[in-house]
Amino acid sequence: MSGVFYGIGVGPGDPELLTVKAIHAIKDVDVLIAPKTEKKEGSVALSIAQPYLKEDVKIVYQVFPMVRGFAENSTDAWANNKKEILALLEEGKNVAFLTLGDPMFYSTYIYVYRLLEHEPVEIRTIPGIPAFAAIGSQMGYPIVEGNDILAVIPATAAPEKVEKALDAADNAVLMKVYKNFGEVTDILARHDMSRQAVLVSRAGLEEERIIHDIEAHKEEKLNYLSTILTRKN
Amino acid sequence: MSGVFYGIGVGPGDPELLTVKAIHAIKDVDVLIAPKTEKKEGSVALSIAQPYLKEDVKIVYQVFPMVRGFAENSTDAWANNKKEILALLEEGKNVAFLTLGDPMFYSTYIYVYRLLEHEPVEIRTIPGIPAFAAIGSQMGYPIVEGNDILAVIPATAAPEKVEKALDAADNAVLMKVYKNFGEVTDILARHDMSRQAVLVSRAGLEEERIIHDIEAHKEEKLNYLSTILTRKN
Repeated sequence: MSGVFYGIGVGPGDPELLTVKAIHAIKDVDVLIAPKTEKKEGSVALSIAQPYLKEDVKIVYQVFPMVRGFAENSTDAWANNKKEILALLEEGKNVAFLTLGDPMFYSTYIYVYRLLEHEPVEIRTIPGIPAFAAIGSQMGYPIVEGNDILAVIPATAAPEKVEKALDAADNAVLMKVYKNFGEVTDILARHDMSRQAVLVSRAGLEEERIIHDIEAHKEEKLNYLSTILTRKN
Repeated sequence: MSGVFYGIGVGPGDPELLTVKAIHAIKDVDVLIAPKTEKKEGSVALSIAQPYLKEDVKIVYQVFPMVRGFAENSTDAWANNKKEILALLEEGKNVAFLTLGDPMFYSTYIYVYRLLEHEPVEIRTIPGIPAFAAIGSQMGYPIVEGNDILAVIPATAAPEKVEKALDAADNAVLMKVYKNFGEVTDILARHDMSRQAVLVSRAGLEEERIIHDIEAHKEEKLNYLSTILTRKN
């Protein structure tokens, strides 16, 4: 197979937060695989990479049904996606999947990677700046230091798991805080982690939003790309 | 004060993993503050940034006594460091502190930042790729996915804290695994997290080392820059 399959982390928003390696890879891409979903993450990643893309880059939209353990429950959609990607690589095209943030960190790319990892395909995965790192630098908020333990928690995890992780950690990053912002804020308050929290939505993107007092804002509707950094007192 | 103080994350080793923003900042630096320590982290960060530095950049070595909560126990050394940095900024020099990985993630820069954050100084902190992200991409090892919870644990944390954090997490990143590699491996084994672990020392640097079977290697001496990625079965 002569084409290369790239998984490229484009960072959280600011096009200057792309790495040199990511830019080199993006310039080498003939075909982009983009997820066809209601969520706008894919198109955000595309707009960050835009300045570096070949003019005639082809975009192929694919549906990725998000079933956990998809290898066992593999659907036709995934099988078709794989077939389509392999055919493009066989034609000698370099194919890429772009990821907001980092490709191996809570990303759809992980599923695409698993689809291809046992095929005779050259895969190059290029890390990206995770949103929490960009937020820490932007806000002057140390993420974690010394011997402290950090829990990274998707707000979509089961509440009892979130509680247990917060119990065990000194610092926390909460990802995908939107649907249950109020509930998450209450859990943080019970762990004495709400007052020192900072929430950033759409870090480095248009309509970026920063909230320092999460308790006062917990009834508000947030964007899907919302992250909280916090720590115990 | 006319100079800018930069905190710059240079990523884990590969100079191509610098961001565009980091490179722009490095090119703008007149004086680098480098920690004078036995550990070689500072000089590793310097060698990664080297290709982009001004030819006549000045390097100022400072001693950073690593006391926790140094604001309260501020030593003369810290006060002198601060005075020296402020004097350079007053002269109009752009001063930078380089960090391996990310500057707000387990970094000495956090202490330097705290020293200056309440001074009338323009501080620009630029995030970097954390080692664990680079390792995930390099090894094709998903760091964390879906609704899973990740614990980031310095191997130097108290064993009972490490146990509790592993209990609460689905996936884990263990940092600074060197002195107590054997002990950490045993703790991971008790949590059913040793067989699927991967350890990488000096990721992207000379003498990089990859260990897949940590139990078989747990008596070995590791480099200070060693990270384990793992997850529960």
